[in-house]
Amino acid sequence: MSPTRRLTKTGSSSSESSKVESKSATQPADKERIRKIYIDDPTSGLTIPFKEVLLSSSTSTTTVDHSEEQSLLLYDTSGPAIRSGEGLPPLRKPWIVERGGTGHPVTQMYYARRGQITKEMEFVALREGVDAETVRTEVAEGRAIIPANINHPESEPMIIGKRFFTKVNANIGNSSVTSSIPAELEKLRWATRWGADTVMDLSTGPDIHTTREWIIRNSPVPIGTVPIYQALEKVGGHPEDLSWEVFRDTVIEQAEQGVDYMTIHAGVLLSYIPLTVPRTTGIVSRGGSLMAAWCLAHHQENFLYTHFEELCEIFARYDIAFSLGDGLRPGCIADANDKAQFAELATLGELTEVAWQHDVQVMIEGPGHVPLHKIAENVQVEEELCHGAPFYTLGPITTDIAPGYDHITSAIGAALIGMYGTAMLCYVTPKEHLGLPDVQDVKEGMIAYKIAAHAADLAKGHPLAQRWDDALSRARFEFRWEDQFNLSIDPETARAYHDATLPAEPAKKAHFCSMCGPRFCAMKISQDVAEMAAGMGISEKEAIEIGMAEKALEFRETGAQIYR
Amino acid sequence: MSPTRRLTKTGSSSSESSKVESKSATQPADKERIRKIYIDDPTSGLTIPFKEVLLSSSTSTTTVDHSEEQSLLLYDTSGPAIRSGEGLPPLRKPWIVERGGTGHPVTQMYYARRGQITKEMEFVALREGVDAETVRTEVAEGRAIIPANINHPESEPMIIGKRFFTKVNANIGNSSVTSSIPAELEKLRWATRWGADTVMDLSTGPDIHTTREWIIRNSPVPIGTVPIYQALEKVGGHPEDLSWEVFRDTVIEQAEQGVDYMTIHAGVLLSYIPLTVPRTTGIVSRGGSLMAAWCLAHHQENFLYTHFEELCEIFARYDIAFSLGDGLRPGCIADANDKAQFAELATLGELTEVAWQHDVQVMIEGPGHVPLHKIAENVQVEEELCHGAPFYTLGPITTDIAPGYDHITSAIGAALIGMYGTAMLCYVTPKEHLGLPDVQDVKEGMIAYKIAAHAADLAKGHPLAQRWDDALSRARFEFRWEDQFNLSIDPETARAYHDATLPAEPAKKAHFCSMCGPRFCAMKISQDVAEMAAGMGISEKEAIEIGMAEKALEFRETGAQIYR
Repeated sequence: MSPTRRLTKTGSSSSESSKVESKSATQPADKERIRKIYIDDPTSGLTIPFKEVLLSSSTSTTTVDHSEEQSLLLYDTSGPAIRSGEGLPPLRKPWIVERGGTGHPVTQMYYARRGQITKEMEFVALREGVDAETVRTEVAEGRAIIPANINHPESEPMIIGKRFFTKVNANIGNSSVTSSIPAELEKLRWATRWGADTVMDLSTGPDIHTTREWIIRNSPVPIGTVPIYQALEKVGGHPEDLSWEVFRDTVIEQAEQGVDYMTIHAGVLLSYIPLTVPRTTGIVSRGGSLMAAWCLAHHQENFLYTHFEELCEIFARYDIAFSLGDGLRPGCIADANDKAQFAELATLGELTEVAWQHDVQVMIEGPGHVPLHKIAENVQVEEELCHGAPFYTLGPITTDIAPGYDHITSAIGAALIGMYGTAMLCYVTPKEHLGLPDVQDVKEGMIAYKIAAHAADLAKGHPLAQRWDDALSRARFEFRWEDQFNLSIDPETARAYHDATLPAEPAKKAHFCSMCGPRFCAMKISQDVAEMAAGMGISEKEAIEIGMAEKALEFRETGAQIYR
Repeated sequence: MSPTRRLTKTGSSSSESSKVESKSATQPADKERIRKIYIDDPTSGLTIPFKEVLLSSSTSTTTVDHSEEQSLLLYDTSGPAIRSGEGLPPLRKPWIVERGGTGHPVTQMYYARRGQITKEMEFVALREGVDAETVRTEVAEGRAIIPANINHPESEPMIIGKRFFTKVNANIGNSSVTSSIPAELEKLRWATRWGADTVMDLSTGPDIHTTREWIIRNSPVPIGTVPIYQALEKVGGHPEDLSWEVFRDTVIEQAEQGVDYMTIHAGVLLSYIPLTVPRTTGIVSRGGSLMAAWCLAHHQENFLYTHFEELCEIFARYDIAFSLGDGLRPGCIADANDKAQFAELATLGELTEVAWQHDVQVMIEGPGHVPLHKIAENVQVEEELCHGAPFYTLGPITTDIAPGYDHITSAIGAALIGMYGTAMLCYVTPKEHLGLPDVQDVKEGMIAYKIAAHAADLAKGHPLAQRWDDALSRARFEFRWEDQFNLSIDPETARAYHDATLPAEPAKKAHFCSMCGPRFCAMKISQDVAEMAAGMGISEKEAIEIGMAEKALEFRETGAQIYR
């Protein structure tokens, strides 16, 4: 490897600024060609984490020469190794201290609107391969957020907005029925290992505070919560006993711990509740159903709505982002895009403007369950009603007939809604609707959603997205099996599936696999065909104009034996 | 159960014609509430297979009363039980004999164009819930096909066309590297059990003829093949030794056995081959690469193209449908929608018209690997160039980065291309690009694709599609756990996932699951909310107009305790 390398910086005005140095975290053995790498950017003084996949030499003689492509750098969310009992290093602490911030909001939006590019914005720009000014503009305009509570300095900055990589959130958290703190930490580790960009701790059981403390101190990604869950525990589980005061205190408690964004179901208005009565599955958001119950029991407007400005003031002091909850999202195909959902969305748009007046960052939660033909409308309506605030959707699930496979039913919807501009996708695991996910479910959900997010990025034309597909496709065509495995989203599984039928080491260099066997490998034959065509010296245009008969005749004399 | 029932026949002009009688195949025990059922249609004299899911009584008091919904009938592809060594009963034999057919084509298209509704068309209409005249029209116009070789009378008729249920094909077949005849029969059984509408036998190893014989005699669904594979075996595996004569004899051999549709790569023209040279992954269709090799080696036009009329004459004598192969389909994201693919597609359109002149049915094979934003164009171009002939696509895979998960990368593309009008989806299993699928892979691929097909049907508004989702959603909202499991695409898996955290029998009646626990179950709270709203006697319109404060006050006195 070269000790110096270049970060691909699209839109960077200075080539100098993209010079970086590598600090390899581990020395790769022959078979350990995937590694975590930190790259120093001398201009900003920042060190950016990546996953690096070292490639073997391209053998292709028939396609464009990519032999200089010695490795591929990929966006990495796995964070530093967890140090038992210590928590992660507080990466952002000096930046936060340096900025100070008494007497004004400390939010990324506040700085962005005043023209200041924070270290967080620079970090994000280097991770995404865009320039920092683009990041600043998107945050200033409210089209993107950088969730970054000043009390969670351990997080590596990331951005949620349609102009950037489509992000994936993983939900973890115990319930009163099952799970434990070590199990939740393991889920956190697995989620970020498999690419979670943020993690929501949805714990509802005992030890909510302690569980969250462990999670935040060990999380390299922003942590989201739904504070109403803990508030409900505080009032003994009785929704009608909830109050603004209990809720406010819970928010401050979580803010102090470092929660980066909070789901607030402030759009579940009293007058919207009857809209859910004709539905097939009523209200399916936990927070939404709790607030609906409170509103009905108290014959009062939702206290999250009436006290929203006070929430903004708290959020501004910590830089907590709103994740405005879709408490009235549809819970089945039949209820998709109905009046209840869109009524709430209009209110979320109104609240977005209030938050922005306080320089508080906002994203908007979305469904849920939506058939394919109604997905585009969701994004269009959200962008219009919510003034371009980033959209953050749960799936959506595109059919209700497959419990046990809702990571797939919803990855379909997630890819589509991502293509249309949703900025972050909340994963759904195979256990959705059936039980609490375990670590294996977390992995399955994450992989399905990283696929969906990446498919969306390809469709949106993210400048760095297609490089990954191209590198893998070239490895495939050139029978560089180890490169193909290592470039896979899940190298172990790819290797294991290959080895299930062809375990021997020579098969890793073979020009076929068990799928077709040696004689029927299209890629093998196709390489021969390409060599034949190249050997004849035919250009594409020429071939079409003159037909190939004469040239083929010429080749027949010398080349036909390559098929034998 | 009632001994008589009605088949839902959308568009049926006579209610009398939809009276049917049930013949239950098995008696359901208390926990065996899923069963195969045969329903007699007295008008046609036909007996149609369905899967019936018996439901427990709806307990809902807050939504529309569905208590009459005692069961749900679902389209079923599993066929009669395989009788060891005997083959399936020849269902269609009397129909074929009665029609006779010396001296003219015996194809469904021939009869359809002459105004004749065959038994196959009636069968299909009853299965699909449409009227027979719609079926006849679609077949006559070439927009749909009923693959039905007169030598495969064991098959239960099915239709492939955009106005009908989106179909799924499963590929099975051994290669020279692995597998056996019993293993392939087991894959056939699994594929049809999990919903395969057709099965392609892609065997390339030894015993191709015998393997195929076993498969056809035991298949309740149409069987497709790629005859060039067997032809290649006959010439010792050397593509340049292929010839029209060897190919023709192979086609006739397979026609006599009863193959219902054959992939013919007649669009891989000599002049198109150079278009593949600049590609990242060249030619990835096995048949396409073989024909390209032959064309180059012989400096001649593809013999499948030059002898296409002779093929039509053979196909017309057996009612074999063309599956015009996309030998130049893209093999990676970078190559999608390129000149090579669309050039071949134009030729397939030309050949479609030739086949139709012979009253031979045609479908068009499609990609492959396509990013999300290029999927719609594929369907539009196919419909235009191929005059509305049904499209049959392999996926498409929407990103190349996830070998080991290509059932998911491609289910995303399949759902989308199905929504746009693709009539049949060829499944992709998790082993794609890595090895030959085993039975578990067949199941995983099938389920991912049944999800994709059903999501497409919902989006297209197939009249029977949403009933299934609605039945499951109601069961979910009403905590009818057993109904929810039984209505699932894979009941065993849904039940197992639920039981992983709450195995006790009472949990099957509980108003919560381990995902949220009892206090946080939105559906439980939502039911309470709906009851509260109903108890207040508020209509949806009224509530919006007057706000709910007064009514809520009234309720507060009596109802708030339901949360306790």
